[in-house]
Amino acid sequence: MLSPLHIGLVGASGAVGTELIHLFEKRNFPLRSLKCFGSKRSQGKKILFQQEEIPIEALTPSSFQGLDLVFFSAGSQVSKVWVPLALEQGVLVIDNSSAFRQDPDVPLVIPEVNPHLLKNKSSSLIANPNCATILLLMALAPLHRYAKLKRVIVSTYQAASGAGLQAMKELQEETLAVLENRPYLQRTIMPHPYAFNLFLHNSPLKEHGYLEEELKILYETQKILEDSTIQVGATCIRVPVLRAHAEAINAEFHAPISSQEATKILLKSPGIRLVKQAMPLEAAGQEEVLCGRIREDRSLPNTLDLWVVGDQLLKGAALNAIQIAECIRGIQTAPEPILSTL
Amino acid sequence: MLSPLHIGLVGASGAVGTELIHLFEKRNFPLRSLKCFGSKRSQGKKILFQQEEIPIEALTPSSFQGLDLVFFSAGSQVSKVWVPLALEQGVLVIDNSSAFRQDPDVPLVIPEVNPHLLKNKSSSLIANPNCATILLLMALAPLHRYAKLKRVIVSTYQAASGAGLQAMKELQEETLAVLENRPYLQRTIMPHPYAFNLFLHNSPLKEHGYLEEELKILYETQKILEDSTIQVGATCIRVPVLRAHAEAINAEFHAPISSQEATKILLKSPGIRLVKQAMPLEAAGQEEVLCGRIREDRSLPNTLDLWVVGDQLLKGAALNAIQIAECIRGIQTAPEPILSTL
Repeated sequence: MLSPLHIGLVGASGAVGTELIHLFEKRNFPLRSLKCFGSKRSQGKKILFQQEEIPIEALTPSSFQGLDLVFFSAGSQVSKVWVPLALEQGVLVIDNSSAFRQDPDVPLVIPEVNPHLLKNKSSSLIANPNCATILLLMALAPLHRYAKLKRVIVSTYQAASGAGLQAMKELQEETLAVLENRPYLQRTIMPHPYAFNLFLHNSPLKEHGYLEEELKILYETQKILEDSTIQVGATCIRVPVLRAHAEAINAEFHAPISSQEATKILLKSPGIRLVKQAMPLEAAGQEEVLCGRIREDRSLPNTLDLWVVGDQLLKGAALNAIQIAECIRGIQTAPEPILSTL
Repeated sequence: MLSPLHIGLVGASGAVGTELIHLFEKRNFPLRSLKCFGSKRSQGKKILFQQEEIPIEALTPSSFQGLDLVFFSAGSQVSKVWVPLALEQGVLVIDNSSAFRQDPDVPLVIPEVNPHLLKNKSSSLIANPNCATILLLMALAPLHRYAKLKRVIVSTYQAASGAGLQAMKELQEETLAVLENRPYLQRTIMPHPYAFNLFLHNSPLKEHGYLEEELKILYETQKILEDSTIQVGATCIRVPVLRAHAEAINAEFHAPISSQEATKILLKSPGIRLVKQAMPLEAAGQEEVLCGRIREDRSLPNTLDLWVVGDQLLKGAALNAIQIAECIRGIQTAPEPILSTL
């Protein structure tokens, strides 16, 4: 057993940082010390960890000295500036932002899907994929190994948590205001009324009319499955739900695959639980991704419909990041990907 | 000008019935008298119409005597029993339920799409399509005339109103209870917690793992567009929104169609309004269907993505029904469908 680690956590008071701290405790992560970093707004706040109060510090060029592993979870702007500094000091970095996901030298890892990248790794920086990509591939990667994925159409139903703790709070406050027939003027995160409403994912519009979030799903899917021929058409929608994302998936494969075969494969797949009715309220707080309604699409051969729901903050972010760290440390975090046989 | 009509309205106190009464007034519908019918629970209630109180009566075999036109909006069980009786008495019936939609002798009409069925009509019964089908085809029918629709994948984001007034009330009450940290035990309509949650559309599970609502969209699309080769794969989801449905549509055509061409066509199409950000809160109370994000799907030739939002109670139900009546009476309710040229 290797010695416990000196850990840094950037974005410690955020939605994902909070979950990471819970998971360190819950999973008994081999941790020797914890340093917490945050934005100016958070400095001075204290994080309760193992009955100890840890102050949130500002990042400085010397912040990473003496640390073994730093989790970054404070957005891509922070990562772009500070991750290179951490790497220079020989620290292992697991970055939850999108800053380095498309860098060909940076492994982009879901431990249930492509853990081999962690075994012979040459990079000290591992990127954690986008939450919607993780949930999608938790269901599709095992099926891809069996029948080779060709094209995916996915419509998302994304929760407030993807935009952070403040967005979750504002959804609740705005909804209460609407129900009490009061105006709500405190909205700062979402660009549109959110109570009893839905709208396009609030990420920038990019080429060909696609949102950044939709392109992330495409590029990350191709990178993680190591197949640039896989086509992904995504529509990303923000729904008034607190912390679990849902996805309606239509997946076309090169080889035949029946709903029975897909069911058998997913029953054996780690991190996925097959249920009749997968709902955000049921998935919230769960480590497993819920998958329901595996249907053959009658409109096209070799095509399945799936309905997937998972906690955006756990498997969509913090849990996946800590599983990456466990994998690197040789802790059996998830069973090996199953083979392509039934 | 033909003489005003003696009208009957079955389901007068329901969500759709309430909207029909508003529309009679708003559109100055040529109405000579109005009789209102309802379930036992509604009897004795009074409907305010043109400053007159109209009592809700029970249906009896003689209810339809003297009426010219009856709108049915009380579910398919009521329609199955009472529509045949109304037809026997020579009454024209517009049925908002699913009871007769698949009957080959019954026209299924969206006035902007297939008004020709009302001009040389041989049936005294006209069926109003499913709300999700209407919104889908308001956007796709004009494009179909240009490039011939081949296959549609649609994921719905359906509001509470589709399940009636009580469902809308329960969504609000349950959400308030959750926000005030109280248990909510009054839920009677939805099978699952609804506040900050979403779930499969609460219609029965039918063949091949499809929900009844999903099969309705398939069969009604084929019937309305008069093309049984069109394939439709639908996933129907109930979201915590009050009264407008949204749909993420991926549509493959036989012929090439660019997003510019589709935009030009929809700009000229009646009943559709192109907007940048189509949201349920904006569509609620609007007669037009909002359409945004006309994108070319980079993953397949001749394929477009669209995002459509419309008031489920208006164009999805009451407005479409009254437009059918107006069409039959020769009132110009909507411009003719545009030709398949740009």
